[in-house]
Amino acid sequence: MSEALTIWTYDWVPEGKSGPRGHVRDIRLRWACEEAGLDYEVRSVPFNDRNAEHFSRQPFGQVPFIEDGDITVFESGACLLYLARKSEKLMPRNPKGEAETLEWTIAGLNSVEMVTVPWWFVGLSNDTSNPLEGWMRQRLKHLEAVLTQREWLAAGQFTVADILMTDVLRVPKLMAAASDLPAIRAYVDRACARPAFKRAYDGQMAHFATGGKTRRHTA
Amino acid sequence: MSEALTIWTYDWVPEGKSGPRGHVRDIRLRWACEEAGLDYEVRSVPFNDRNAEHFSRQPFGQVPFIEDGDITVFESGACLLYLARKSEKLMPRNPKGEAETLEWTIAGLNSVEMVTVPWWFVGLSNDTSNPLEGWMRQRLKHLEAVLTQREWLAAGQFTVADILMTDVLRVPKLMAAASDLPAIRAYVDRACARPAFKRAYDGQMAHFATGGKTRRHTA
Repeated sequence: MSEALTIWTYDWVPEGKSGPRGHVRDIRLRWACEEAGLDYEVRSVPFNDRNAEHFSRQPFGQVPFIEDGDITVFESGACLLYLARKSEKLMPRNPKGEAETLEWTIAGLNSVEMVTVPWWFVGLSNDTSNPLEGWMRQRLKHLEAVLTQREWLAAGQFTVADILMTDVLRVPKLMAAASDLPAIRAYVDRACARPAFKRAYDGQMAHFATGGKTRRHTA
Repeated sequence: MSEALTIWTYDWVPEGKSGPRGHVRDIRLRWACEEAGLDYEVRSVPFNDRNAEHFSRQPFGQVPFIEDGDITVFESGACLLYLARKSEKLMPRNPKGEAETLEWTIAGLNSVEMVTVPWWFVGLSNDTSNPLEGWMRQRLKHLEAVLTQREWLAAGQFTVADILMTDVLRVPKLMAAASDLPAIRAYVDRACARPAFKRAYDGQMAHFATGGKTRRHTA
């Protein structure tokens, strides 16, 4: 086991016009580490032939998961909330700020992504009459109302909740569906313009372009 | 604002053979309070005519949300993780146990419920060829493999992760779909046999049967 915080992801994912390269969820954790100035190492598990050791560390066969000393955490949302405790740049150190960061991170996972990912998935085979279209639109409209009034979701500062929500929203097909929702679009543009996002994105693209070799990133 | 921990839910929801009565998500928070022996008060917002004040406290117009002194939290998953810090009966007090509770709570929200709720919703209009059927089955099978080997999901004890996952799974249509997954069925039976679940369930049913009047529950 490495001494550094280790982010595990796949060794390879298919190329494609709009992902998954650039959208694998290790980017959420890279981004958090880059924002906070945390050293991290990225290591790979096979994308094909997911083995028993992978399932022992991620019971659904997904990525990412992290190792931090003797602590392991799977689920990108859980990893973000775990990393948030390491830096005030990811979550303020007061009960109200923590509660806001927590609720908005979960809102990204369970009120927005819970609709947008199945909407995207169903749309692959059923693009003209997607039964999740109305629900997805309703959720985005509620989020639009919030983002019309604030720069970042929680605690008056950029937090892991913004990392999560931005990564949920920036899927090309979803951004196209949000063409009439200017606050959401501006929010995603604002978040993705952060240097830490660009470093995280470039890091993921380089990882998949070079066979998923272990690489250490230092602040 | 009340001194007690307050759980906000709707004043009324429709009756029906398999819910939503008995399945409104305030039950997750009632259950946690009952397990931990926390006093709580349940108060109502209108189910019909959700107003601006409701949206100011729950931006998606959902329930539940909680007030605890000057802290407010929305999203049932976030509320569970918030309440977990109040009692070792909900989450152990060590970093490994906290990390396991966190990851399994998020897995319930984002790996299982993210598939099962849209699967249920799409099935309302499209029961014979649900495009989410295969994905839902796959997730349940992975969960079955885990539950074949352990009594509770995280940290070798009952935690908020089990409250979340059980409430996600116990939807009648989903339990019917899991008829060939005995570990999942036994897990849900085991969790729902807990006296704290029964008190929470009865409390929710009484709430909706009596017009959503404010009621205080003491340990």
